[in-house]
Amino acid sequence: MLKLFYAANTCALASHIALQEAGADYETVRLDFRANDQRKPDYLAINPKGRVPALATERGVLTETPAILAFVAQRYPQSGLAPLDDAFAFARVQAFNSYLCATVHVAHAHRMRGPRWVDAADTAAIAAMQKKVPQSVGECFELIEREMFAGPWVMGEAYSICDPYLFTLASWLELDGVDPARFPKVRDHRQRMAERPAVKKALAAEQG
Amino acid sequence: MLKLFYAANTCALASHIALQEAGADYETVRLDFRANDQRKPDYLAINPKGRVPALATERGVLTETPAILAFVAQRYPQSGLAPLDDAFAFARVQAFNSYLCATVHVAHAHRMRGPRWVDAADTAAIAAMQKKVPQSVGECFELIEREMFAGPWVMGEAYSICDPYLFTLASWLELDGVDPARFPKVRDHRQRMAERPAVKKALAAEQG
Repeated sequence: MLKLFYAANTCALASHIALQEAGADYETVRLDFRANDQRKPDYLAINPKGRVPALATERGVLTETPAILAFVAQRYPQSGLAPLDDAFAFARVQAFNSYLCATVHVAHAHRMRGPRWVDAADTAAIAAMQKKVPQSVGECFELIEREMFAGPWVMGEAYSICDPYLFTLASWLELDGVDPARFPKVRDHRQRMAERPAVKKALAAEQG
Repeated sequence: MLKLFYAANTCALASHIALQEAGADYETVRLDFRANDQRKPDYLAINPKGRVPALATERGVLTETPAILAFVAQRYPQSGLAPLDDAFAFARVQAFNSYLCATVHVAHAHRMRGPRWVDAADTAAIAAMQKKVPQSVGECFELIEREMFAGPWVMGEAYSICDPYLFTLASWLELDGVDPARFPKVRDHRQRMAERPAVKKALAAEQG
């Protein structure tokens, strides 16, 4: 059985929702970031990166949200979570998720994970990073709203693995100091996502 | 015909090498970052992100290195550049490339692209970011060397789309202030990659 290692209020929610949408047989293991569980030897033996998500499979552990999402879509093809038989359409899905991972999530992470990129004792530099987050995250969502979001789902008529990932990162907008009202399509998407049974189930499990 | 938009000494090299390895019919368009070509209206109409690489196809433009690399592998299946019929093995390839994109490249980018994450006028914060790059990039390559690199190629016996991407980012180690001698497997890989005809051709085209 698949086993998802996650922490609450992290990007692991995207993989969690995708597993629900796919009707996958899986269990979850919750890490507590406040207790620094992700840096304990037991977990580092599973994921040496010390991050979430990690998905344990019968053949080994997978990491990185874009990779896990594509894996779920491929393992459960009947779920229709990605255009598996169309290399171009699949690449568009992947490009969107890669942008979320490498640009949007990274911009967001400068609010709470500054010591990854400057000395943790350099409080001025940490503060300088935090100060820019509303602008950098806001610019990312402007691009998504204007150029990337096809509607009604990210890729158009077909719900895909892009949707839970966008939902997850868009749920951080207020905390990042960005007003979601600037992005009507993204905000509407967030509301519709929140009504999906798979999203409700994943959120209830993580918040329970 | 495929058309790759690139700039010299950027991560676009990975896609360029993959196209060569696949025997693809493609042409290239060179952007000059010193002239800020990537921010000019003509290019923003192609890629609104203002970044490279971008791959124009007969159906539209693709961006993001992990997405482009997987697309090349899927479009040219006879090249064997990814385990297309094995969802788990494909996800491992994708996880490696996602790590390069979202963690390794991002760590590196704090040396030259600091204004993405702090005010450009905050020279102290920019300097603080630059100062950490040798450590953050070094830690990434320690993890690659110790945990991820199977050998002789990234994924083991089979050369894949992970190899040109690792080669590309590893070629920046010295400029990032990291001694490649700390990573014997990565350094050896870099040397073997440099001898491949596809790599020589892509580098010659970009440096010509």
